[in-house]
Amino acid sequence: MVNLVEMGQRAKVAARQLAQASTEQKNATLHAIADALEAHRDDILAANRADLDAGRANGLTEALLDRLDLQKRLTGVIADARSVASLPDPVGEVFDAKTLDNGLRVSKRRTPLGVLGVIYEARPNVTVDVATLSLKTSNAVILRGGKETIHSNKALIAAIREALENCGLPADSVQFIDSPDRQYVMDLLKLHQYVDMIIPRGGNSLHTFCRENSTIPVITGGIGICHLYVDVTADQEAALAIIHNAKTQRPSVCNALDTVLVNQQVAAAFLPRVVQHLGASGVRFRAEPRALAALGSAADTTVTPAGPEDFDTEWLSLVLSLKVVDTLDEAIDHIRVHSTAHSDGILSQTPEHIERFLNEVDSAAVYANASTRFTDGSALGLGAEIAISTQKMHARGPMGLVELTTYKWVIVGDGHVRP
Amino acid sequence: MVNLVEMGQRAKVAARQLAQASTEQKNATLHAIADALEAHRDDILAANRADLDAGRANGLTEALLDRLDLQKRLTGVIADARSVASLPDPVGEVFDAKTLDNGLRVSKRRTPLGVLGVIYEARPNVTVDVATLSLKTSNAVILRGGKETIHSNKALIAAIREALENCGLPADSVQFIDSPDRQYVMDLLKLHQYVDMIIPRGGNSLHTFCRENSTIPVITGGIGICHLYVDVTADQEAALAIIHNAKTQRPSVCNALDTVLVNQQVAAAFLPRVVQHLGASGVRFRAEPRALAALGSAADTTVTPAGPEDFDTEWLSLVLSLKVVDTLDEAIDHIRVHSTAHSDGILSQTPEHIERFLNEVDSAAVYANASTRFTDGSALGLGAEIAISTQKMHARGPMGLVELTTYKWVIVGDGHVRP
Repeated sequence: MVNLVEMGQRAKVAARQLAQASTEQKNATLHAIADALEAHRDDILAANRADLDAGRANGLTEALLDRLDLQKRLTGVIADARSVASLPDPVGEVFDAKTLDNGLRVSKRRTPLGVLGVIYEARPNVTVDVATLSLKTSNAVILRGGKETIHSNKALIAAIREALENCGLPADSVQFIDSPDRQYVMDLLKLHQYVDMIIPRGGNSLHTFCRENSTIPVITGGIGICHLYVDVTADQEAALAIIHNAKTQRPSVCNALDTVLVNQQVAAAFLPRVVQHLGASGVRFRAEPRALAALGSAADTTVTPAGPEDFDTEWLSLVLSLKVVDTLDEAIDHIRVHSTAHSDGILSQTPEHIERFLNEVDSAAVYANASTRFTDGSALGLGAEIAISTQKMHARGPMGLVELTTYKWVIVGDGHVRP
Repeated sequence: MVNLVEMGQRAKVAARQLAQASTEQKNATLHAIADALEAHRDDILAANRADLDAGRANGLTEALLDRLDLQKRLTGVIADARSVASLPDPVGEVFDAKTLDNGLRVSKRRTPLGVLGVIYEARPNVTVDVATLSLKTSNAVILRGGKETIHSNKALIAAIREALENCGLPADSVQFIDSPDRQYVMDLLKLHQYVDMIIPRGGNSLHTFCRENSTIPVITGGIGICHLYVDVTADQEAALAIIHNAKTQRPSVCNALDTVLVNQQVAAAFLPRVVQHLGASGVRFRAEPRALAALGSAADTTVTPAGPEDFDTEWLSLVLSLKVVDTLDEAIDHIRVHSTAHSDGILSQTPEHIERFLNEVDSAAVYANASTRFTDGSALGLGAEIAISTQKMHARGPMGLVELTTYKWVIVGDGHVRP
C-alpha cells in the first residue's frame, strides 16, 4: 500500500538533511551508490531479465524492449553515477553579490529546489540518472517508473537506498512508488504541499496529462519536431552531411530531424541528392507537392506524397518530411506553426539570414550550420542532463545540475531599517 | 462579449512583433504611454472617481478604497512608466558563451517569455506597472483586474493602447478582459496554447485558485508571514529599531513583520521594551504563554494571549505575535512550520548563528540584522518589480525585468555533425 502523503512528508524531512550535506559527503555517497550497483549487479540483471521476459510475453515492441534492457547498459549507468561525483556542486554558489548605497550587503545563494517528482516510462537507467543528479543537487526525489520495468527499478532503488544509509544520508532521499496503479501518478501531481517540481519523461500524452492535472510546476519537453532550412547559399555538401547526421545518427530521439525545408531556388538541385544520400541509409520520405515536383524523376519508391499531418509528426524513425519554401520568411512561418520549439536550424552562408533565423525562431535551441543532434546535456557541455525543457519557465533546453536548483536572496545589514 | 481564445491569438501575434522591436522603439513607446496618461489625466481621474463612488456605495473598506484611489497616485504612476524606459533592456543579452572543443560556438540569448496573464484585484496602478514592464521585456500581456476598478482600468488601457498604436507597435500587446465575470479567470488559466506565464497578484485564495486550476505555470507569492529571531547576542537597541520598522513602517504589505521569536535568555529583558516601544506606535500583541510570563507586569492592555492560529496569520495590520524559544534550532523549526517562505531574519552578533540561520531557513529572502521591509524590487536595486515570488521555480523573491524573460540556446557550427 502506497501512501503518497507519507512519502511526501518523508521526502521533505530528507530534503532538509540533504540541504545541509557537504559536497564531500554527497560525492562519497555517489561513489557508494556506484559500488552498491556493482555489488548487486547479479540481482539487478536478474530482475531486469524478469522484466524483459514479461515484456516479451506481453508483446512489447522491440524498441520498448531495447529501452528496458539494462544487460549491456549497466556498466555505463554505473560509470555515469561516478561521473556525477566529478561535476561541480552548484549548491551554495553565491552570485549577483553587491553592496547597496545604504551599505546593505545583498547576494543570491544557490539552494536545492527541495523535492522532485519524476514520472517516466520504460527506461530503468533513468532511475539511476535521476537519483544521482538529485543527490548531487541536494534534492530529495519521488520516482514513478513504468510498470514494464518495476523489477529492475526495485533492485536499483534497493541498492541506492542501501548506499545512502551507509553514508549517513537518509534513505528517503530517493523514494519509489512501488505500484503500477495509475492513481498514484494523479496523487503525486497534487502533492504540492511537499513536491516542488514535476519532471515527466515520456511521450506527448504523459506531458499533456501532467500539465493538465498537476498543481505543482511541471517541466514539459522532450518532444521534438525538428526542422532544418536549406537556404539558397547553403554549402550543399555540408548540408547533406548535416541532414544525414540529424536524421540517421539516432533516429529514435527527440533531437533527431523531422522536416527539411528547402528554398525553391535550390530545390531541384538539392532534393534529389537528399533522397539519394539518405535513401541509401534506409530513410523514407514524405514530400509535399512542390517537393515532389522538384524531385521529378528522382522520386523513387522511398518517396510518398506527404499528408497534411505529416508535418506535425515527430517521426522517431527513419522517415523525413520534405517541403519547398519560397523564402526565409516562409521557412520561419512554417516552423512557427509546426515546430515543438525543441531544435530548429538554418543551413546558409548568408549572415543576415542566419541572424534573422536565430532571432526569430522561438525554439529552445536554434542552430546555424550544425546538426540538431547536439541538443543534449553532454553534447553542450553540461556534464549531465535530467531532461530537455521545451517550456519557457525556469529552464529551457537541456537541464543540467544548475537547473535543478533555485536561489534565495541573502541580505545582511548592520541594523538597517527602511526609510 | 469576451472571447479569450481570440485574445490569446491576438496576443501571440503581438508578441512576435514585440520580440523584434528595438530597445529604442520600446523606450520611445514607454514615454509615449506616459504622455498619453498625462493627456488623458482628466478622463482617467473621472473614471477613477466613478470607481471610488461605486466602491463607497458598495461598502468597500477604507483599506480597499485606498488601494483603488488613483487621484493622488497617478503622477507617481506616470513617473514610474518613464523610469522603466531608463532601465536596461534584458532582451537579446548573450550569456554563458563558449566554444566547445569541437569548435561549436554555444551561447544563450535572453528572449521574452511571450504572453503573460496577470490577474489582480483592486489596484489600478498595477495595470500601468504590468503593461510597462511587459512592454520593456517584449512580452504581450492579458490583464484581468478587479471589478471594483473596471472604469479606472478601461481609461488607463485606452490611453496605453493609443500610445502603442501611435508608436507602431500592436495595440494588442496590452489586452484587458473587459468583464467582471469570474468565468474568464478560469478561461485565462486554461489558455496554455497562447499564454506562457500566469502572475496572480492578490490574496491567498487567488493564489490557491490559480495553482489548482491553471494549466499554465503560475508564479505564486506575495503572502508573507515574516519572522525575526532575537538571539542572545542581539544588539538590543538595533533590534528594537529593526522590529519597529519591520512592523510599523508599512504594516499592510507582505514583507511587514508578523512574529518576533526571542531567545529565552534575553526574553525578560527584551520583550517589555518591544511592548513599550511598539505599543506607543499603536501595535497590539499576541503573546504565547512563555512570552506572557517573560513580559510579567509589562503585559499591559495591548497584550492578549496568542491563540494557536495567530502564528499562521499574515497580520497586514498593527498586530505582532510574540514567542519565546529556547534555542536557535527552535527558532528555525518554528519558522519552518509557520513561515510562508517570504522574508525571515535573525538579529544576532554571533557569526555562526547568523550563518546557520541564513543557510537553514528556506525562504525567498533571509536576513541578518536588517528589517524585512527590504524585500522589494526597488529596495534591492532591481529598478522595478512585477511580483514577489515565494515559489521556487523560475524566480524567487522580487521579480524584475530579467525575471520576465527566458533564454534560447544558440548553436553555431561550420558543418558540425554528431559523431
